[in-house]
Amino acid sequence: MKLLRFGPQGQEKPGILDSDGQVRDLSGKVADFVGSSVSLEALDAIRGIDPESLPLVENPGRVGACLASVPNFFCIGLNYAKHAAETGAEPPKEPIIFSKASSALCGPNDAVIIPRNSVKSDWEVELGVVIGRETLYVSEADALSHVAGYCVINDVSEREFQAERGGQWIKGKSAPTFGPTGPWLVTADEVADPQKLDLSLSLNGETVQDSNTDDMIFGVAEIIAYMSNFMKLMPGDIIATGTPSGVGLGMKPPRFLKPGDVMELTVEGLGTQRQETVAAD
Amino acid sequence: MKLLRFGPQGQEKPGILDSDGQVRDLSGKVADFVGSSVSLEALDAIRGIDPESLPLVENPGRVGACLASVPNFFCIGLNYAKHAAETGAEPPKEPIIFSKASSALCGPNDAVIIPRNSVKSDWEVELGVVIGRETLYVSEADALSHVAGYCVINDVSEREFQAERGGQWIKGKSAPTFGPTGPWLVTADEVADPQKLDLSLSLNGETVQDSNTDDMIFGVAEIIAYMSNFMKLMPGDIIATGTPSGVGLGMKPPRFLKPGDVMELTVEGLGTQRQETVAAD
Repeated sequence: MKLLRFGPQGQEKPGILDSDGQVRDLSGKVADFVGSSVSLEALDAIRGIDPESLPLVENPGRVGACLASVPNFFCIGLNYAKHAAETGAEPPKEPIIFSKASSALCGPNDAVIIPRNSVKSDWEVELGVVIGRETLYVSEADALSHVAGYCVINDVSEREFQAERGGQWIKGKSAPTFGPTGPWLVTADEVADPQKLDLSLSLNGETVQDSNTDDMIFGVAEIIAYMSNFMKLMPGDIIATGTPSGVGLGMKPPRFLKPGDVMELTVEGLGTQRQETVAAD
Repeated sequence: MKLLRFGPQGQEKPGILDSDGQVRDLSGKVADFVGSSVSLEALDAIRGIDPESLPLVENPGRVGACLASVPNFFCIGLNYAKHAAETGAEPPKEPIIFSKASSALCGPNDAVIIPRNSVKSDWEVELGVVIGRETLYVSEADALSHVAGYCVINDVSEREFQAERGGQWIKGKSAPTFGPTGPWLVTADEVADPQKLDLSLSLNGETVQDSNTDDMIFGVAEIIAYMSNFMKLMPGDIIATGTPSGVGLGMKPPRFLKPGDVMELTVEGLGTQRQETVAAD
């Protein structure tokens, strides 16, 4: 299933794509997609609904984040070897975990706001994983059975805030609109192998990131199993699994976002995003 | 007002202390304390209710976390000069921000579970701040007007997970039960000055932390204003504002939690916590 949320900011309704790729209105069946409403059991209940029986949405308009809110917006750092190299870092020996403020979440095509005093805002296309059940001390073999689905994420990052303002990365990852997520939550049954997905990002039409999730240092199953040693993952938690090489920080000279830039992102099978950047008020 | 949640894990009801310090049942008026239900407007509506008009709860039993869940569980690092010194770190030039997984949240007297493979679990009494309205680019002068209230927090920390497993602190801050919060959310109007509160923690009856919030490097207003340059704070967000000296990591030799230890914490005017530690299954 491809689940989405459509409508103006703050008034989104849940929807599902039918077999023709048209949006059907799920709001008569589901209040919204958030936390326990994307548990594996809740998704099974939606699976029992015939999309063609739901109201057709002829003009869905804006697409929101595929989750209304998240208990946690986790990220994995330096998880592609070439990206670690371009930032000047050693490849990590174990996954680096950090988080974004949950208020960074936004729609896949919403404008990305460059924060006040930012001079180093940057892009990061990533495979997003959405957790479907409580996950603590899970084995790598069982880990993928805890996944509700996958989505495209742009882990927008302010490099000065991230690395030059005290060491913990959350400061550079959390501005409003720094977490475009969607267009769809694609349920796990539709992703045969999360480690065989092309992903790319273009800036103003020029491809700058172009890789495949088979280049991850730590795969999705290993990340989930590893994280579950340190915390209990919850339904609706997002994990952004790291970005491949080609970010602005790694260019010579470095290149950062300025108002009017356009980012277009895609992860194979998960849809596309398009954001124009604007300056903060 | 002193707001709380009482009842078995997962079945807590919202309550309020009356003028005799007895619990009154607010569940007929408020669904739960979470996010927008602790906005300043929502708290004003509760302020209009006479507690004596509410059902008396003769045996409230267990007290839960004073919030059912949080959009973000933020923390400030090394925010007391003597604590920074005891960890061997320089006092920070600007606030260090990190976060706990929101699933770390637990009741003030629940058992604290020492995670599997932990050898360095440690205690941290802190003043918790709960945000009451959306907060972005707020001035220090206006910052305290965005506070819903205050609470006691034990920012339980696993030092090896925090500092020796990849650099980002969230790994050592996020285990289930690593965030005892409460007993009460004390609304901001009852705290004349958040920078004049004694706070202390005893381990097995021995006082190990004993300080006052006037020793903070960055005060509550400065923290909120600073954070709002990097992210939008939301109603229900918690900020644990840092711990004073006296943690186990700073002792010579270092001393860490073992099953059966008892922590008792207090912040002036905000109530007390008592946790016994147990080993993870």
